[in-house]
Amino acid sequence: MDPLRTSIVDAGPTHLRVRGHDVLRLMQHATFTDLIFLLHHTRLPTPQERRLVDAILIGGADHGPGAPSCAAARLAASGNRQSPSAAIAAGVATIGDEHGGAGALCMELIAAGVARANGDPARFAAEAARLVDEAKTSKTRLPGFGHRVHSTIDPRVDVLFALATTNGLAGHGIAFARALESAVAQRIKPLPLNIDGALAAILHDLGFPPLVGKLIFIVSRVAGLSAEVLEEYTREKPMRITFDVTYDGPEPV
Amino acid sequence: MDPLRTSIVDAGPTHLRVRGHDVLRLMQHATFTDLIFLLHHTRLPTPQERRLVDAILIGGADHGPGAPSCAAARLAASGNRQSPSAAIAAGVATIGDEHGGAGALCMELIAAGVARANGDPARFAAEAARLVDEAKTSKTRLPGFGHRVHSTIDPRVDVLFALATTNGLAGHGIAFARALESAVAQRIKPLPLNIDGALAAILHDLGFPPLVGKLIFIVSRVAGLSAEVLEEYTREKPMRITFDVTYDGPEPV
Amino acid sequence: MDPLRTSIVDAGPTHLRVRGHDVLRLMQHATFTDLIFLLHHTRLPTPQERRLVDAILIGGADHGPGAPSCAAARLAASGNRQSPSAAIAAGVATIGDEHGGAGALCMELIAAGVARANGDPARFAAEAARLVDEAKTSKTRLPGFGHRVHSTIDPRVDVLFALATTNGLAGHGIAFARALESAVAQRIKPLPLNIDGALAAILHDLGFPPLVGKLIFIVSRVAGLSAEVLEEYTREKPMRITFDVTYDGPEPV
Amino acid sequence: MDPLRTSIVDAGPTHLRVRGHDVLRLMQHATFTDLIFLLHHTRLPTPQERRLVDAILIGGADHGPGAPSCAAARLAASGNRQSPSAAIAAGVATIGDEHGGAGALCMELIAAGVARANGDPARFAAEAARLVDEAKTSKTRLPGFGHRVHSTIDPRVDVLFALATTNGLAGHGIAFARALESAVAQRIKPLPLNIDGALAAILHDLGFPPLVGKLIFIVSRVAGLSAEVLEEYTREKPMRITFDVTYDGPEPV
Repeated sequence: MDPLRTSIVDAGPTHLRVRGHDVLRLMQHATFTDLIFLLHHTRLPTPQERRLVDAILIGGADHGPGAPSCAAARLAASGNRQSPSAAIAAGVATIGDEHGGAGALCMELIAAGVARANGDPARFAAEAARLVDEAKTSKTRLPGFGHRVHSTIDPRVDVLFALATTNGLAGHGIAFARALESAVAQRIKPLPLNIDGALAAILHDLGFPPLVGKLIFIVSRVAGLSAEVLEEYTREKPMRITFDVTYDGPEPV
Repeated sequence: MDPLRTSIVDAGPTHLRVRGHDVLRLMQHATFTDLIFLLHHTRLPTPQERRLVDAILIGGADHGPGAPSCAAARLAASGNRQSPSAAIAAGVATIGDEHGGAGALCMELIAAGVARANGDPARFAAEAARLVDEAKTSKTRLPGFGHRVHSTIDPRVDVLFALATTNGLAGHGIAFARALESAVAQRIKPLPLNIDGALAAILHDLGFPPLVGKLIFIVSRVAGLSAEVLEEYTREKPMRITFDVTYDGPEPV
Repeated sequence: MDPLRTSIVDAGPTHLRVRGHDVLRLMQHATFTDLIFLLHHTRLPTPQERRLVDAILIGGADHGPGAPSCAAARLAASGNRQSPSAAIAAGVATIGDEHGGAGALCMELIAAGVARANGDPARFAAEAARLVDEAKTSKTRLPGFGHRVHSTIDPRVDVLFALATTNGLAGHGIAFARALESAVAQRIKPLPLNIDGALAAILHDLGFPPLVGKLIFIVSRVAGLSAEVLEEYTREKPMRITFDVTYDGPEPV
Repeated sequence: MDPLRTSIVDAGPTHLRVRGHDVLRLMQHATFTDLIFLLHHTRLPTPQERRLVDAILIGGADHGPGAPSCAAARLAASGNRQSPSAAIAAGVATIGDEHGGAGALCMELIAAGVARANGDPARFAAEAARLVDEAKTSKTRLPGFGHRVHSTIDPRVDVLFALATTNGLAGHGIAFARALESAVAQRIKPLPLNIDGALAAILHDLGFPPLVGKLIFIVSRVAGLSAEVLEEYTREKPMRITFDVTYDGPEPV
């Protein structure tokens, strides 16, 4: 068999390095967020970048056991109390384009728009309008706008954008996301940028590829899933979650 | 259906709190490690506690694609490129008592020993000797000692214990782990505390229950699994991982 | 790397065999249940054995979307519509000792009791009484007896036992399970054998080890999970499953 | 919360029905393959249909531990010996478009082609040629043709098609698949229909939607994953699977 290749981690019996950085040194001086950045990027973050990534990781970790990922993790903890990892795995498998995935889709939109504008902010409004019109024509939903619960505005969006500005990291991603928001308001209806859109804009400005939009949400949410599983194991009896079910299929034969 | 209960997260349309702490404020001022601590504990960590948890999270995140969790995640990314969450879930499901679980088992050992000694360090040596003798009699393996790769000493152990001492957080957990290490050396053979044992001692001293030993490793390792999946998606072709197989079953019928 | 070993499947570029049996021939003449038996046993089943295994596989496949495994699969299909396998995996991870696992635990009980009696049916009543008394003393639950929904009797139990008798396959497993049922009724309270207990007795009589009690339920239930996922994908909108949540944690700080 | 809806399974305390069929009666008279058909279709199969579905389920169950799904399941069994369901879940998560998913993609192709031809076999050759030319132009791979291992012909394909013909079930699906095979040979190069393509043609002729192409493979493969997990638990030590790893990332800093 060919060896598995990696450019991320170099592990030997007496050393362990992540992208060339000695893990012992990182353990003494870095934060977990530094390591997450390093694992998914080419380098360690600046303090300003770390602040933004911390905010994103904190904002997505847990919104309560009603979210599909958390409910699935609790269900698995409820039926299978031999393996907390199985419960967390069930929760992770629940994450997709529809749940936690809009950030990555919005990153693709932003990357496409910024590329079409050749990175020239003067052309962002025009390209954003074009993308919105294309979405209208093809009747596709624009990821990163609107929210099924927060009908008005998600306060986390303002916090994230304020942090980006304060830390001098608001770049093309945020500018293009705002251009999209304006174009959506003019051409469809006012749909504020949601947390996925804000996350997308900032991760774009931090230099991450779209796939990281999904991955960072998973890394973040696992912290919450883990806590939900801890509570289910320690406070609840197995098999306690019940559902009402309505059968509407064929009559008895 | 009865509502799902939670004491962790309080989520409403306009607010989000973790154990009473406003998430918007945490996003502005806390680190992801603070949030992980808060989600699994009753309060935010001190700076000293945060340093130790960062070191633990950094130390366990990734040891290369040869680990079962990382290999399983890469295999899933190799066969199923529609869902990065499915790949991470496959990696998480691979974590158990045999892979990443010794920390929790060692926490149970430490908790049992400290309790038997009524928390009196003068009795730790005697109780450690008793536990080692019991393990010898029942021929059970003592979790947290020895390592299948690091035959000498895992340098991360020294780093973790030095951090605990420097930060004034070395308590009964570390003392009892060291007592166990001495008893093992005297009664069986020199088997140094490994990273699982060090993690167990420190998490005990930070006030976490044993189950958190497993959960913290999962939270930590997911950062690595995510990076492995990112690399497999972006650099490798699907279905590239092959195995040699030997069949040793019945002859053709 | 050492090659992976297998005694089950022999796969070459021009042939494929399961325990020595040519798969092309099996595809033409056998049933899927034959193959499931062969994969987990040393040989193909007799027609009588196949009838019993079919009954077991049919009986466990699906009890509606309210079961934790099915609900978890639907939640994952609801949040992640890119990967039906991720949804089925979430459902499978939900299966454990508490959900679908009592059969394997009851098989261990039966195997232990039959072994204590040296396989002599004349001693089954005494050994069953002893096991029940031990469970009473240690306050452990006897797996395979009672049901959280079917407070009276699960009609599937009678069907399974009647099939075993009709097909001449009622052996020590069923005899010992009935002995346990009598001992439970005399020494605790009348708790009829449930579907897990019936399955355990029959799988014991078919010569399977206890672990197969868990595995056969998983194989069976995956047929149902698959159908639940098909329905969720084709009939329901993403993110449609909602939960009421009650927060009872710390007050805002 | 709204109740979960289902048209598949009707479960009450004293009855259990699948699409109106009494499960007790099915347990006595039907096969597991009948139930799998019923769960994913609107009715029970005829004996001829059952023969084909049995052949498909048998043909996909297991090709040895070198397949990604089986290797992932064994890895999970190797690191997490507390939960066989977690191991099977890891294997299932590995199944996607690249591994076991070509059948569903080929079903979409066949369904599209038959629809374009308005179900008129006289037009199949022309529409197949058009689809092949479109794939050539867009440089997309045609799912269901060629095989990474069987460079010549997969003997299971002939068996499946012979069974379909013998049982009078060869319909538009097989005719269109054969038309595609001819068009591929004329316009690209000879690439024989592989097992995914054969499965796709037959499942189309049995009236299943494309998604069932994926689901049936999962149901089938879980039987093999279960046997692989059984063997890993009973015959192998934990953590026995090792990989060679090559690091090619940044130099130490």
